[in-house]
Amino acid sequence: MLKIAMAQMEVIPGRPDLNTGKILQMMEDARQEGTDLVIFPEMSVPGYLLGDTWEQSSFLADCESYGEDIIAATKDTELTIIFGNIAVDWKKKNNDGRVRKYNALFIAQGGKLVQPDSMPYPFVIKTLMPNYREFDDTRHFFSLQKLARELGTTPGKLLSPISLKLKGRDYQIGCLLCEDGWSDNYEITPLSELTNGEKVDFLVNISASPYTLGKNHRRNVVFGKQAEENQAPLFYVNAIGLQNNGKTIYTFDGASTAYNAAGQVVAMTPAYKEKLTLLDFDQLAAMPVQEEEKLTEMAQIHRALKYGVSHFLRNIRMEKVVIGISGGIDSAVAAALYTEILGPDKVLLVNMPSVYNSETTKGLSAQLANNLGCRYMVVPIQHSVDHTIKQLEGTPMTFLQEGTETSLKVSSFVAENIQARDRSARVLAGAAAAFGAGFTCNANKAETTVGYSTLYGDQSGFLAALADLWKHQVYALAYYLNEEVFHKEAIPQGIIDIVPSAELSSAQNVDEGKGDPIKYPYHDYLFRSFVERWQKAAPEDILTWYSEGRLEEELGCEKGLVDKYFPTPAEFIADLERWWNLFTGMAVAKRIQAPPILAVSRRAYGFDHREAQNGPYYTRKYRELKARLLSL
Amino acid sequence: MLKIAMAQMEVIPGRPDLNTGKILQMMEDARQEGTDLVIFPEMSVPGYLLGDTWEQSSFLADCESYGEDIIAATKDTELTIIFGNIAVDWKKKNNDGRVRKYNALFIAQGGKLVQPDSMPYPFVIKTLMPNYREFDDTRHFFSLQKLARELGTTPGKLLSPISLKLKGRDYQIGCLLCEDGWSDNYEITPLSELTNGEKVDFLVNISASPYTLGKNHRRNVVFGKQAEENQAPLFYVNAIGLQNNGKTIYTFDGASTAYNAAGQVVAMTPAYKEKLTLLDFDQLAAMPVQEEEKLTEMAQIHRALKYGVSHFLRNIRMEKVVIGISGGIDSAVAAALYTEILGPDKVLLVNMPSVYNSETTKGLSAQLANNLGCRYMVVPIQHSVDHTIKQLEGTPMTFLQEGTETSLKVSSFVAENIQARDRSARVLAGAAAAFGAGFTCNANKAETTVGYSTLYGDQSGFLAALADLWKHQVYALAYYLNEEVFHKEAIPQGIIDIVPSAELSSAQNVDEGKGDPIKYPYHDYLFRSFVERWQKAAPEDILTWYSEGRLEEELGCEKGLVDKYFPTPAEFIADLERWWNLFTGMAVAKRIQAPPILAVSRRAYGFDHREAQNGPYYTRKYRELKARLLSL
Repeated sequence: MLKIAMAQMEVIPGRPDLNTGKILQMMEDARQEGTDLVIFPEMSVPGYLLGDTWEQSSFLADCESYGEDIIAATKDTELTIIFGNIAVDWKKKNNDGRVRKYNALFIAQGGKLVQPDSMPYPFVIKTLMPNYREFDDTRHFFSLQKLARELGTTPGKLLSPISLKLKGRDYQIGCLLCEDGWSDNYEITPLSELTNGEKVDFLVNISASPYTLGKNHRRNVVFGKQAEENQAPLFYVNAIGLQNNGKTIYTFDGASTAYNAAGQVVAMTPAYKEKLTLLDFDQLAAMPVQEEEKLTEMAQIHRALKYGVSHFLRNIRMEKVVIGISGGIDSAVAAALYTEILGPDKVLLVNMPSVYNSETTKGLSAQLANNLGCRYMVVPIQHSVDHTIKQLEGTPMTFLQEGTETSLKVSSFVAENIQARDRSARVLAGAAAAFGAGFTCNANKAETTVGYSTLYGDQSGFLAALADLWKHQVYALAYYLNEEVFHKEAIPQGIIDIVPSAELSSAQNVDEGKGDPIKYPYHDYLFRSFVERWQKAAPEDILTWYSEGRLEEELGCEKGLVDKYFPTPAEFIADLERWWNLFTGMAVAKRIQAPPILAVSRRAYGFDHREAQNGPYYTRKYRELKARLLSL
Repeated sequence: MLKIAMAQMEVIPGRPDLNTGKILQMMEDARQEGTDLVIFPEMSVPGYLLGDTWEQSSFLADCESYGEDIIAATKDTELTIIFGNIAVDWKKKNNDGRVRKYNALFIAQGGKLVQPDSMPYPFVIKTLMPNYREFDDTRHFFSLQKLARELGTTPGKLLSPISLKLKGRDYQIGCLLCEDGWSDNYEITPLSELTNGEKVDFLVNISASPYTLGKNHRRNVVFGKQAEENQAPLFYVNAIGLQNNGKTIYTFDGASTAYNAAGQVVAMTPAYKEKLTLLDFDQLAAMPVQEEEKLTEMAQIHRALKYGVSHFLRNIRMEKVVIGISGGIDSAVAAALYTEILGPDKVLLVNMPSVYNSETTKGLSAQLANNLGCRYMVVPIQHSVDHTIKQLEGTPMTFLQEGTETSLKVSSFVAENIQARDRSARVLAGAAAAFGAGFTCNANKAETTVGYSTLYGDQSGFLAALADLWKHQVYALAYYLNEEVFHKEAIPQGIIDIVPSAELSSAQNVDEGKGDPIKYPYHDYLFRSFVERWQKAAPEDILTWYSEGRLEEELGCEKGLVDKYFPTPAEFIADLERWWNLFTGMAVAKRIQAPPILAVSRRAYGFDHREAQNGPYYTRKYRELKARLLSL
C-alpha cells in the first residue's frame, strides 16, 4: 500500500536554513506516519521571489549545501522525497555571464539522488519559464529549452518519465515544475514531450504559485484534464507563505490538490494551512470526489488580506500599527482589518481634523474607534498648517543674483496638500515612531490608478493593504467585516453611507454632499480596463466601445451610467482624457514612490504592472475618432 | 559613390507620432544631401523602455501605422532606409497569451519593404534578448530563436545576408539588432549564423543601448573585432535620449560609430547629439582612424547627469526646482548642478536650521547660495518640531477597550526623524508647490545602500540625480563643477572639507568633528561590492577575503583602512553585519518608496537591481567562518 504525502509547507523566501529545518521536520513527521513518498513544493529550499539575490554566488552554494543535507536525510530510511531547489552548474554560464542556474526538481532516495533517465543532470529542469506579471524566471533561470538547444537536441529528448522504486515496485512518474503544466501559449507541451504517448503511473507538479482571485478554479480545469488524458493521478503541491518583489506582495495559498486518474479532485489541502496531506495511492480511485472550495469572492479576498497582512507584519517584525482615520470608508476598513489581526491594544487610531473636517466625520471616527475598542487620539492639524502657510508666505525669498526680494504665495490647492502631508509625514509618522509602530496607507485601487492622493501625505505608509481593491470592493469588505468577522456594526453604517470626500477644502463639504471627483460606479470599471484586462484597454478602445454603444458591457459596469454621467461626447471625452492623463502621468510618478501593495487581483500595481514615467499618449486612431465624435 | 548616413536621433519613448515626424524629417535632410541609405536606431518608432505599454494593442497598431507612413515615404525617392520598430503578428501569440510581438529591423525602398531572403516576415527579427539589469526584452518580445523552434528550424536557417540594390549595385548586408552583437554568453552567435562564412559587403547594428560608464570602450573592442573578422565595415547606430523604467532612468548616449573593414573606428557621432553622420562608403578604408573619446570618468558622469537631469525636467515639464541645502556636500553639488542646468533664477535654495545646526553650516549654506546667485530662503524648523513633539506627547491616547489613558513619549531618535520630515514633507514640499517646482532628493549611493536617510524626509524628492554616485564621486563632481563648469569656487571649499553630518542631534556636532557613522573611504567600496560586482559579494565573500588578507584588494579601496578602522575581527564583523542588516533590511523598505534614480554606473538601484523585502540572511559558511574568527 503506497502512501504519498503532499507537503504543503510555508516557504520563507531567502531562508534556506529555516526552510530546510521545516523540510527535515516534515520528512520526520511523514516517516512516522509510514509515508513512502513526500512531495515538497517548487523552490522549497531557497524560496522563489528573491529579486537579484540569485546573483549572490554564496547564496547559491548555501542552497546547494542545504539541499545535500536534505538528500542525506533520506539515507537509512524508507522515505523517498521530491523537492524543489535551485541547481547550479558552476562550470557553465547563463546568458548574462553569471553562473548557470536551473529551477530544478530533485528526487532523493536512500541518501542519493535518483537520476532521471534522459537528463544530463541528476535532477529535472523546469522547461517553461513564466515571464509575465510578477514573474522574472527568464532573468535568473536557464530553461530546459535552452539547455536542449545548447546540447544540440530537443526538449523531448531530455524529458521522460522517471523510474522510481517505491515499496518494492517500479513506478513510472512524470515530474513537472509549475509553469510546465500551463503550456497553452508555448511552442511545446512538456507533459506530452515527457510521456511521448506512454503510460505513466502518476504525475507530479511542484509549484510556487501565488494566489490570484479565480486561479484555483482554472487550475482544476487544466490539471484535471492532464490527469484524465494520461489516465494517471496528478499530485499538485504548492507552497504557502508570503513572498514579494519589493513593490508587490503575494500570498501563496497552497491549495495542494490530488486529482484521480479521471481528473477529479479527490483531496485538497486547505488554503494557507501548513499541512502534510497523506494519500493512499491505491485508494485514490475509490476516494469521493471533492467539491471545489465554495467561498464568496469577498471571503477569499478577506482571507488573502488577513493572511498577507499578518505575515507581512511578522516578517518585518512590526507588532503595532498607527492608522489615520478620517471618518471615510477606506481608513475604517483598514482599522477594522488591522484590529482583527492585531487586537485593539496594538492599533492606535488617530483622527486629525482641520477646519474643513465636519462634525459628521469627526463623530464617525470616534464611533468607529469606540466600536473597535482601539487606542485613540485626536490630533488637530490646523495650528501646524497655519504655521506652515504663514512661514512659507512670510519668509523673504531673495534672488541673490539680482538682490531682489519676493515671497511665495500658497494657493488653496497647495494648502490642500499641506494638510495631507501634515497628517501623514508629521503626525502619523511621528506617532508611529513614538508608539513603536508603522503607519498604514489606506489607498484603494481607484485612487492609486489616478494618483488621487498626496505624495508624502495620504499615499504614505509601510504597506498599502487595500490598494489592490477597487472602491466597490472596499465597501463590500466593510459589509463582510461587520457581518462575518465582528458580527456587529463595527464599521458604522454612517461611514458606509457618507459621500467619499478628502475634506481638504470647503469644496469637499460632506454635509453638502460634496466629495471626490471620482464617480466610482463608473470609474472603478473604466480604470480596471486600463490595468487588469489581459489585452490592456487604452483610450482608443474605450472611445471605440463608446461610439459603438457597448462600453458598459465591455467594462462590466451598471447599464445607463455613461449617459447619466456624460450627456454629450464632449463631456465623455473630457472625462476620459482627464483620468488617462493622470493614470499615465502624475500617478506613475506617485506609484514609483508608493508603499508596497498586497496583491489579490490578476494585476496589481508595482512589479506586476511595470511602467515607465513617459507621460500620456493618444494614438492616431483615437485622435481621428475623437474629432469625428466632436464634430457630430 | 554610395552615401550612407547614420541617423543618431533622439527617440522619445512612447511617442511614435513624434518619432515618426523626426524620422521623416531626417530622411528629407538626408535626401537633400544625396544620401542613398539612412540607418535609424532600434525601436526608433515606439521607443524601447515602455514598461507594460507593450500590452496595449492599440499602441501596437499605432506603431505599425506610423511604420507604414515611413515605408511609404521612400516611394518615388532614391532613398533606402533601415529602421527599428515593433512588428506584430496579429494571428500568433506570445508565451503570455498576448499578441505576438517582435523587436524588428525594417528595410524600405521604393515605398516597399525589402524581404530578407530566409525570413518568414518582411523584416529582420532580433535573435538575442537581454534579460539582465534594466532589460526586460523576453517579457515582451518573441525572439528569432523561439520562432525558429516554433517553425521546426534553426536560427541559422532564418538568418542570412540581405541583398540590397543601392545605386544600381547589389550589396550583401548583414543586419543585427543591438544584443545580437553581444553574443559572448549565448548559445549562438547571430553574426556567424547570418554570414555562414560568406562575405558580406557591410554590417549594420541598430541599437537602443543605454549609457553605462565604460561601455563604449568595450563596444569598440567587440564590434571592431566583428568588422575585422568579416573584413566588412560595420555601422553601429544608437539612439540618444532619456528612457526609464519607473524607478531607474537611463540616458542613451548614441555614440554611433562606423568601423572600417579592419575594425578601426573611422567615424563617431558625438555622444548625446542628434545628428546625421554622412559617410562615403567607398572612402571608408581611406578615412583616418579616430581616437577613442578621451574624457575623464568625471567628465563623462557630469555629461550624463547634465543630459539626464535636463531631459527629465523637460519630459515632466518641470521648469523650476527647490533644493534643501544643509551646508553639506550632497546638497551643494545638487544645487550647483541644477543651477548649471536651469540658471539661478529657476532654483530656490532653502536652508532649514534647527537648534542642532551649527553656525558653520548655516554660513556655508549662505555662501553657496551667494556663489550660485540662486533664490534663497532660510526657514527655521525648530518651532514646528517643538510643536509636533509637544502635540504628540501632550495629546491623551485613550485605550477605548479599557478606558485607560496614556500618552506617547518622543525619544531623541524619533525627534531626529521628525526634523528630517519637517524639512522635506512640510517645508520643501510646500515651498516647491508654491514656487511651481519640484524638490530634489540629494541622496548619494552610499546612503541609499544602507538607507541612511529618513523616509518622507531627506529621502524624498521628484528625482535622485546623485543616487548612483558613491560619496567619493560626489566629492569629485564638486571639484569638477568648480573647476570645469563654474571656473570658480562655486561650492565653497568649506563644504568640501567639513565632516559629513546630518546635524540632527548634539551627537552629530560638526564643530566637534562628529558626523555620519559611514566611513566613506572604506564603506563606499564595501557597499559597491554588494551591488555593482557582476557576481555580487555577500558577507561570506567579504569575510573570506578579510580572513585571507585580501579584502582591500578585492574592494579596490585604500590599503591599510581595514586594520585602521577595525582593530579586531569582532569589530570588523560587527560593522559588516550592521550594514548588511540595513542594506537587506530597512534600506530595501526605503528604496521601495525612493524617488527615481538617474543611472550612470553598471548597476543602479531600482529596476536595474531588483530586490525583495526579505530581510538579512547569512549563509552557513559565513556563520562558521565568523565563529572561527571570533574564537581566535
